Amino acid sequence: MLPPGSTIGILGGGQLGRMIALAAARHGLRTHVYAPEPDSPAFEVAGRRTVAAYDDEAALVGFADAVDVVTYEFENVPADTAHILATHVPLRPGARALATTQDRLEEKTFVAGLGIPTAPFRAVGSAAELEQALSALGRPAVLKTRRFGYDGKGQVMLREGDDPRAALDTIGHVPAILEGFVPFAREVSVVAARGVDGSFAAYDVCENTHRDHILDVTRVPARLPAETAARALAHARRIAEALEYVGVFAVEMFVVEAEGRSEVIVNEIAPRVHNSGHWTIEGAETSQFEQHVRAVCGWPLGPTSLTGASVEMTNLVGADTDRWPALLAEPGAHLHLYGKGVARPGRKMGHVTRVRRRPAT
Amino acid sequence: MLPPGSTIGILGGGQLGRMIALAAARHGLRTHVYAPEPDSPAFEVAGRRTVAAYDDEAALVGFADAVDVVTYEFENVPADTAHILATHVPLRPGARALATTQDRLEEKTFVAGLGIPTAPFRAVGSAAELEQALSALGRPAVLKTRRFGYDGKGQVMLREGDDPRAALDTIGHVPAILEGFVPFAREVSVVAARGVDGSFAAYDVCENTHRDHILDVTRVPARLPAETAARALAHARRIAEALEYVGVFAVEMFVVEAEGRSEVIVNEIAPRVHNSGHWTIEGAETSQFEQHVRAVCGWPLGPTSLTGASVEMTNLVGADTDRWPALLAEPGAHLHLYGKGVARPGRKMGHVTRVRRRPAT
Repeated sequence: MLPPGSTIGILGGGQLGRMIALAAARHGLRTHVYAPEPDSPAFEVAGRRTVAAYDDEAALVGFADAVDVVTYEFENVPADTAHILATHVPLRPGARALATTQDRLEEKTFVAGLGIPTAPFRAVGSAAELEQALSALGRPAVLKTRRFGYDGKGQVMLREGDDPRAALDTIGHVPAILEGFVPFAREVSVVAARGVDGSFAAYDVCENTHRDHILDVTRVPARLPAETAARALAHARRIAEALEYVGVFAVEMFVVEAEGRSEVIVNEIAPRVHNSGHWTIEGAETSQFEQHVRAVCGWPLGPTSLTGASVEMTNLVGADTDRWPALLAEPGAHLHLYGKGVARPGRKMGHVTRVRRRPAT
Repeated sequence: MLPPGSTIGILGGGQLGRMIALAAARHGLRTHVYAPEPDSPAFEVAGRRTVAAYDDEAALVGFADAVDVVTYEFENVPADTAHILATHVPLRPGARALATTQDRLEEKTFVAGLGIPTAPFRAVGSAAELEQALSALGRPAVLKTRRFGYDGKGQVMLREGDDPRAALDTIGHVPAILEGFVPFAREVSVVAARGVDGSFAAYDVCENTHRDHILDVTRVPARLPAETAARALAHARRIAEALEYVGVFAVEMFVVEAEGRSEVIVNEIAPRVHNSGHWTIEGAETSQFEQHVRAVCGWPLGPTSLTGASVEMTNLVGADTDRWPALLAEPGAHLHLYGKGVARPGRKMGHVTRVRRRPAT
């Protein structure tokens, strides 16, 4: 167990790194944020800062030597970066989690290999392979880059009549994966943590709605039969154990309703704190950020129960943030703003959480 | 209303400044901490830092020019310091709150002048005045320095047979006040806020127990008849209005039970966030730190209702902090550590808050 006063190194300076740093500070931990952009929001709340590129080996070594553990806020940490850091200091979550989740083909193969349902998928390395995959999976189907996709970027839907070559042009002819379309009833996620000692703690299943491919609203608990929710949690646990994972992670899933029953299908794993877990700051006994700090410090995990009857989190994207005066004036609306300068369209600027409290008895 | 992205200047770098800075960050505000000690805990979480003495005029002006509003974490801000700052930038709470609360004689005179009960008191400027005051108030009585007292420092109890001259020696023959002893049943505090627009919001009355003159445990709600609690809140509101106060403050009170009824007697005003309000971080919809930020930014005050049925906050003083592993492992114990280096006896190192949730219905 790292003692209070230890320093957590955080790779990445966005809102997730910022909220990890804020949680760490509550426990008397120091933070050191490493990010390439000088105006990174996380720098504002960290005791030490390194402004350097993710492939700057000297800066990485200096950073690793200055901290007691390194974690990260994004899954696209380059493998070389992870390797350099991990040879100097514990990297949590580890390189295996990164390697598996950075590549959609690796990830889906890994999940399916655990016997967990996924969308049907095929590797696509050429126009010919795309044609074969389309024949096998049918349409609609979704062509996705294997790497560097998020918030709907790097993916193209192929419906009847769409030209496969145009889709390959759109994604830039990089290695890809074709996924059969899943006619889901709703999207959910499991946010959970695994400790250094193998302990596991999951929050209630989150129900997510998106707007323009970006998370819009998370509601907890999700409207799911108890049995389906239990299966979703079991999938998350199985994934964490197979990855020997340490820290908070999220598993995005589709809920498919067929023949009167609900099935959950794993879509994606995020090896980090997750937007669909922001509600935990006010809505759960232990926030996902504190939980992540606990896990990476080798501390016991905290309780994940709700602090109220239900919780709703709404993202503030782009100009949504202009609503801040009304949100500040709304009783019980917990406003979070990330300290970003320019509210570009599509940029996550903040979020607001509303907890429905249980009535006094 | 200051917009998000504005900078709050915080005078003082201890745990209160640190927790104000953490709250400000949640709302996308920047913070700039000014403190003389290079290892101040608040520096770790602030975007900008000034290490300088409180009487360094050039540093104060530079600080004031770099921020949009200045607040402080301690009541002993020198009058000259307050004046220099206030000529450059809004100082909230204002100089009047400081002047009134820095001096026990001023403070008691002010409170009594509002028609609010206090302990009987007399000014003491000499041995002769002390003798007269003792004759008037009887024994036991408490001799207190007019300025710079906190956590029981700067005060001496005078019981039957105690030598008044020895008491004056103990406090160093500085201007003093003699207070008649109040045979209180319990100690409570009201933590409340007043906004720039005159709005007022108080938390439930807090019940406090001390150990070695330092706050040990705060329990909310206090065990008080509703009518007595209402009177305590009314006293706090009257004080805030008379001071044209902006920000969070605390009023420490004694509860005296006599002839089957409870009376509240005002003991002391703290023009700042207060240790007996730390429970609000998890225990109230709006923490006292967020509330203070809202007030000093000219924002609407947030709701002060409890998030559970009751709350208990325990300070971790000196070696108490060694219990951190057990506290981290206790489900539902919210551990806060302030990032201070050495756990000297009597030093506030952290606190732990336990919220009793309402049961699901």
